[in-house]
Amino acid sequence: MSSSIASRATEFAQWYLDVVVGGDLARYAPVRGCIVVRPYGFALWERIRDALDRRIKDTGHANIYLPLLVPESLLQKEAEHVEGFAPQVAWVTHGGTEELSERLAVRPTSEALFGEIYRDEIQSYRDLPVLVNQWANVVRWELRTRPFLRTAEFLWQEGHTFHETAAEARDEAERMLGVYREIWQDWLAIPTITGRKSESERFPGADDTLTGEALMGDGRALQMGTSHDLGQNFARAFDIQFLDRTNVRHHPYGTSWGFSWRTIGAIVMVHGDERGLVLPPRIAPIQVVIVPIWRTESERARVQAVVEEAVAATEATTVFGDQSVRVEVDWRDHVTPGFKFNEWEQRGVPIRLEVGPRDVANRSIVVVPRISSSEGAPAKEVVSVDRVAGTVSATIEQLQATMLDRARSTLHRNTRAASRWEDLVAAFDGGGGFVVGGWCGSVDCERAVKDATGATLRVLPFPGEITDDSTGEECIRCGGVSTGPAVFARAY
Amino acid sequence: MSSSIASRATEFAQWYLDVVVGGDLARYAPVRGCIVVRPYGFALWERIRDALDRRIKDTGHANIYLPLLVPESLLQKEAEHVEGFAPQVAWVTHGGTEELSERLAVRPTSEALFGEIYRDEIQSYRDLPVLVNQWANVVRWELRTRPFLRTAEFLWQEGHTFHETAAEARDEAERMLGVYREIWQDWLAIPTITGRKSESERFPGADDTLTGEALMGDGRALQMGTSHDLGQNFARAFDIQFLDRTNVRHHPYGTSWGFSWRTIGAIVMVHGDERGLVLPPRIAPIQVVIVPIWRTESERARVQAVVEEAVAATEATTVFGDQSVRVEVDWRDHVTPGFKFNEWEQRGVPIRLEVGPRDVANRSIVVVPRISSSEGAPAKEVVSVDRVAGTVSATIEQLQATMLDRARSTLHRNTRAASRWEDLVAAFDGGGGFVVGGWCGSVDCERAVKDATGATLRVLPFPGEITDDSTGEECIRCGGVSTGPAVFARAY
Repeated sequence: MSSSIASRATEFAQWYLDVVVGGDLARYAPVRGCIVVRPYGFALWERIRDALDRRIKDTGHANIYLPLLVPESLLQKEAEHVEGFAPQVAWVTHGGTEELSERLAVRPTSEALFGEIYRDEIQSYRDLPVLVNQWANVVRWELRTRPFLRTAEFLWQEGHTFHETAAEARDEAERMLGVYREIWQDWLAIPTITGRKSESERFPGADDTLTGEALMGDGRALQMGTSHDLGQNFARAFDIQFLDRTNVRHHPYGTSWGFSWRTIGAIVMVHGDERGLVLPPRIAPIQVVIVPIWRTESERARVQAVVEEAVAATEATTVFGDQSVRVEVDWRDHVTPGFKFNEWEQRGVPIRLEVGPRDVANRSIVVVPRISSSEGAPAKEVVSVDRVAGTVSATIEQLQATMLDRARSTLHRNTRAASRWEDLVAAFDGGGGFVVGGWCGSVDCERAVKDATGATLRVLPFPGEITDDSTGEECIRCGGVSTGPAVFARAY
Repeated sequence: MSSSIASRATEFAQWYLDVVVGGDLARYAPVRGCIVVRPYGFALWERIRDALDRRIKDTGHANIYLPLLVPESLLQKEAEHVEGFAPQVAWVTHGGTEELSERLAVRPTSEALFGEIYRDEIQSYRDLPVLVNQWANVVRWELRTRPFLRTAEFLWQEGHTFHETAAEARDEAERMLGVYREIWQDWLAIPTITGRKSESERFPGADDTLTGEALMGDGRALQMGTSHDLGQNFARAFDIQFLDRTNVRHHPYGTSWGFSWRTIGAIVMVHGDERGLVLPPRIAPIQVVIVPIWRTESERARVQAVVEEAVAATEATTVFGDQSVRVEVDWRDHVTPGFKFNEWEQRGVPIRLEVGPRDVANRSIVVVPRISSSEGAPAKEVVSVDRVAGTVSATIEQLQATMLDRARSTLHRNTRAASRWEDLVAAFDGGGGFVVGGWCGSVDCERAVKDATGATLRVLPFPGEITDDSTGEECIRCGGVSTGPAVFARAY
C-alpha cells in the first residue's frame, strides 16, 4: 500500500486522492463514481458511526429501516423536493425480465417514503413526536465524483421526525445540528461555523436548513452535515394530520438531518499532511502501532518480550473516559522498519512505538507522535517500559486536543471580515478561506458574489460563531441594510 | 398496535403476518415486496447483527463496503452465477435523464464485484487469506414475498474470502457455518440441522454449500443461512492469480457466507404462540417491562417509588455474562393495564413486572414470565422488592435455556426416519417436519421426492446431526446404494 503522495501545497486534489488510496481508506470501484471502502477506511467509518449512533439514541431517537426503492409517484408528491432531486436519481425500470409499470428511484434520500409511511402512524398528538433515524446507502447520480466527498453512492444516516408544534420541530433541528457539532468537534477534531443556509442553498422542500461548514486544507469549505426544519411541507404533501389536544386536526411539523461518510473526506483534508493521513486518536482504528526492530532470531525473541509487555500495559489503559487503547504490532518480516514507518504514517496512526535490541537492553521504548512537536504536539521521546502506558495514554489525549487547536487556529486565521466589495473580491483573489460580509438577503447580491469570486454563501452564522463583527451593517454588494453577516467561501 | 391475532394452529400464514405487525416488528411498505422495519423490529435486528458482527471480527474478518450497483458485464463473468440470479435482478437503466450505456444490477449478492475488485489486491501468497465482510442491503425481485422471509430487498451480511489452498477455504466455510450455528443456538435459541446442500440446491457458482435448517411452528423448514465453498470458480472467472511460496501462479480458493434478517422470521415462527411474539431474552430489545397500576395520584406516587427501586436494582444486574438487564416502564395513562399486558405479550417481552397499590403495601412485585410454567419455564410469582433483581436475572437466563430446550424437543419430535418410500410419503401426508431417508445422490430421486410430497432435500447432515440412523443403506427412492442420510422437508 505504501506509495508516493503528491504535494499537498501545490497539487491538493491529487494529494487528496493519494492520501485516500495510500492511507488505505478506499479506492475507486469498477462502477462509475463509486468507491470500495477498504477495511481500514471502514473501521474508521464504524467508529464515527457508532459515536453518532449513541448520541442519536441518547437524544430519544430509534433506528428503523425504510425501503431502498421509491416509486416515482411518491417522489413527485412534494414539488420542490422532486425538482431538486430528479436530475440525480438512478432509476430501476426492470425487475428480472419484466418491465415495471412504474419506475422506482434508488433513494436519493427518504423524506418522501417517510411521509407516505408515517401518514398512517400519526393520528393523535399522542403519536407525536415521531423520532426515527436510519443508517442507509443512498444514490445520487453525480457527474463529477471524488472519494467520500461526492460519490454516486454513499453511506449516511438520515433522521426523520414529526412534531406537534413549529417550535418543537425547530428545537429538534437545532438539537441535532448540535449533536453533529459535538461529533465534528469532540471526535473528529474539526471546528465548524454553524448557522443557517440562504434560501438558494436550502434542502429542496425545507423551510430552513441548518449547517456546519468546515475549512479544508486548500482553503475551500466543506458542508459537514445539515439539519432541516421542514415546516409542514411534507406533512401537507403527504396529507399527514393529527388530532391535537383540543381535538382539532393539524399537519405536524417535520425535520430531517443527515450526516454522511463525507466527514471522512473532511478528516483527510483538515488534518492530513505531506506524509499522508493524520487521524484524530479518538476515532483512529489503531491508536498505537508498535514496530519491532530485529535482525537475528535471538534479538527477535528479546524484542518480543518487551513488545508483549508494552501491549499488555497499553491495552489495559483507557483514554477518553471509556476507550481501551487500540494497539497493533507489525511483525511483518518481508519489509523494512523504514517501510513500515512510512506506511503507518500514511495511514495516520497517532502514535508509533519502536522497540529494537538497544531499547531492550535499556528497557526503553521510543514513542513517536504522528504530528510534530513544532505544532504543539508532544515530542518524540524515549521512555522506560514501565512508563509507556502512561505516556501513551497522555499523548493520545494531548494529540486529540492539539489537532482541534491546530484546526481552530487555521479556521480562525482563514476567516476574514470584509466591509467593502473590493476587500471581498481581493480576499478571494489572494486565496481561499471564509470571507464574512454584510448581506441584504437578496438572491441577486448572493449571485453577484459567486459570479465575481466563485464563492457561494455557505452559512448565515448563529450568534457568537463569528468573533470578528467588523463587517458593517450594510450589504457588501448593494449597500442595503444587512440582515446580518454572511460567510462566503469556495466550496466542495 | 394491539390487535387480534389469527389462530396459530389453523391459519399459520395469517398468524405469522399478524404477529409481525402486532408485535411491532415490521409492516408492508408502499413498495412492492418491501417492508418497513419498525423501531422495535430494528432494535431486535441490531442485537442479532451486533452479536454476529463481534464473532465475525473475532474470527479475523474485517468489514468493508462494496458498491450497490454491479455492471451487467461483471455479473455475467461467472456463468452459473448469472444464470442463477438474472431472473431476480432489479436493473438500473437511467441516471438522471441519461440512459446508461450498460445496465447496472442492484446487487443480489456481491461475489462478482468482490472478485473483480480483489483481482488487483491478490498478487502473492502474502496477500492471502483475504477475510472480509459487509453488512448491506440486497435486492432480489421475488414474485411472492413474506415479511423478513422473502422480501424484494433485505438486509444481511455477506462474507467473502480467498485462500491459498482448497483445505483452508473448506475450513473457512465450515468455521463460518459454525459461527452462524452459535448465533442461532446460543442467541436465537433455535436448533438446526447442519450439513451440505445437494447439487441442485447449491448456490450458483459454488462447489459446495453448507447450510443450517430449522423447523418452523407449522412443520416447514427454513434455511437459516448458508456458507459456500466456491472452489476456484470465481477466481478463474475473474482471473485472480497469486504467486505461491514456490513462485508458481495459482488461482486462490474462495468462500462466501450470508446471514440475513430472515432469522427474525425464524424467531417468530419457532418461538411465537397464540398470544404473539416470544423473544429469546438474550436478543430481546426489552427484557423486562414494568406495568405500574394505579388509580389516584397518591397511589401513583407510591407505586412510582417502588418502580424506581426495582428499575435501579434490575438495571444494575447483568445477564449472559455482560449484558445489563434492559428494562422499560410503561407509564401511559390513556390505556388500561390489561391493554398493556396484552400489548407487551404480543411484543414478546420475556418478563413483565406488575406493581400496584397492594404490592406497594407489601413491598412486593409480581413477576410474570412470557411463557408458561407448563412449558418448563419459571412460574409467575410474587417477590419482595429486595429480591426482584435476583429473580429477574435468574428468570431471564432460565427462559433462554427453556426456549432452546423447547425448540429442540419440537425439532426432535418432528424429525422422523423413513426406510421405505411408503413411509416417507405417509410422513408428509400426515403433516410436516423433517423426514430422513437414504439417498443415492441422483437428481432424479431427489426430484421424485419433491413430485410426490412437495418436500425438497434440505440438507445432507454432518455426522452426529441426526441421532436416528435407522434410514438404512439404500436410497429411499431407487433402492441404490445410499451415500448417506438426506433430510427432506417442505420449506419456506
